[in-house]
Amino acid sequence: MLKYQKIALEMVRHITGNLQQKDKLPVIETLISHYNVSKSTIIKALKVLEDKGIIYMVRGSGIFVRGEGRKGYYNLLGVNELQEDANDNRYDLLNIMEIELICALPEVTTALGLEKNAKVYSVKYVYYLDKQVTCLEQAFLNQKIISNLDEEIALKPILKYIKDVLAIKMRFPDIYVNVDKLNAEEASFFGLNAGDPMLCKEIIYHLANGQPCCYSRAVFHYKQAKFFLKVNSPN
Amino acid sequence: MLKYQKIALEMVRHITGNLQQKDKLPVIETLISHYNVSKSTIIKALKVLEDKGIIYMVRGSGIFVRGEGRKGYYNLLGVNELQEDANDNRYDLLNIMEIELICALPEVTTALGLEKNAKVYSVKYVYYLDKQVTCLEQAFLNQKIISNLDEEIALKPILKYIKDVLAIKMRFPDIYVNVDKLNAEEASFFGLNAGDPMLCKEIIYHLANGQPCCYSRAVFHYKQAKFFLKVNSPN
Repeated sequence: MLKYQKIALEMVRHITGNLQQKDKLPVIETLISHYNVSKSTIIKALKVLEDKGIIYMVRGSGIFVRGEGRKGYYNLLGVNELQEDANDNRYDLLNIMEIELICALPEVTTALGLEKNAKVYSVKYVYYLDKQVTCLEQAFLNQKIISNLDEEIALKPILKYIKDVLAIKMRFPDIYVNVDKLNAEEASFFGLNAGDPMLCKEIIYHLANGQPCCYSRAVFHYKQAKFFLKVNSPN
Repeated sequence: MLKYQKIALEMVRHITGNLQQKDKLPVIETLISHYNVSKSTIIKALKVLEDKGIIYMVRGSGIFVRGEGRKGYYNLLGVNELQEDANDNRYDLLNIMEIELICALPEVTTALGLEKNAKVYSVKYVYYLDKQVTCLEQAFLNQKIISNLDEEIALKPILKYIKDVLAIKMRFPDIYVNVDKLNAEEASFFGLNAGDPMLCKEIIYHLANGQPCCYSRAVFHYKQAKFFLKVNSPN
């Protein structure tokens, strides 16, 4: 982790623990001396926080806390177990139903840019919140990139494993959201009726060279399908 | 519009019209001489395209087209009529059902950071796709910021009006997505049954000083509730 990333993390913890929406942060000079780093490190760390929608900077006025968003809503970018930062209290418990090495179906070869019948790991997760099933996820991982997947690895954030253990740089995800009716099998997991609403969230993760490495499809109980996104649009 | 924004727009048009996913862009030197601008302008324009998920840059390898995403999916950031760039063919027709100046309900005063009983404009939109209702939107606008709203203004992208005509700088939106069952009134608009799924997308737009100015709540027909988001996460 680079120095500005560490400072950004410390700042996030400080803001989350101590500050409210619209609270003003100290001026940059104070931050420089408090964290004992260079001005460019502070600027980079503030840029990270701005991009994450945690702060906003008003020219000539200061740096302000953007605030948490609504209760019960989860960060659209921070979910699906594959995601690096899964410590968001979104669920109480995570189980793996099945890990298999399979021939990828067409939908999966398209998402991962693979040849026909290429091998992928399929991992089925169940997430619980208040002892209720809140999400069913099936993740597909390119076997050429992750060659030795087992339950121990699959139960930790896999993207972190790819980055830290396999030392492969990750880049950007594509996210797709759609709404549909639950089928009978899905409904039985959630304790709902077939035809009840569901939200499906698909994520395709890419390596730094643009190659897709993981494809995840998560179906959410409609009462827990609440997401927020804080955009930092250019002025 | 600043020079790098113009160049970014030209690049987007060129890419959309001529290039495919994974196609390589010319090297920066070629772009500089083609667009006849400085290196820093090209870099800024490329950064805009990277942030929008249109290109990705691989160090030592080049600049590549990230691709369009799936058919039938709309940019999560590019919708609701209030948004600046509504030319995304998401609908065939837009009607206004009602424009009123009303006392804001608690939900609206919270979203817009207003005092109790403050006045807001309420605009109800209906969107059609293939002659079917695809979206119902209700937008609330702070009357102290937009003081003379009428049908002519409301039928154009309102954010553009705020920026260009009122000359107020906009900053960032907060987006909330949730899923629920349609109530009877909503269902009748969509030609669906009460209890059928819907996706609700709320957006709160802020001015450059952090003040919220518009709050929009859009309910989508579940068959058209398909969105994508291209994230440009830090390396």
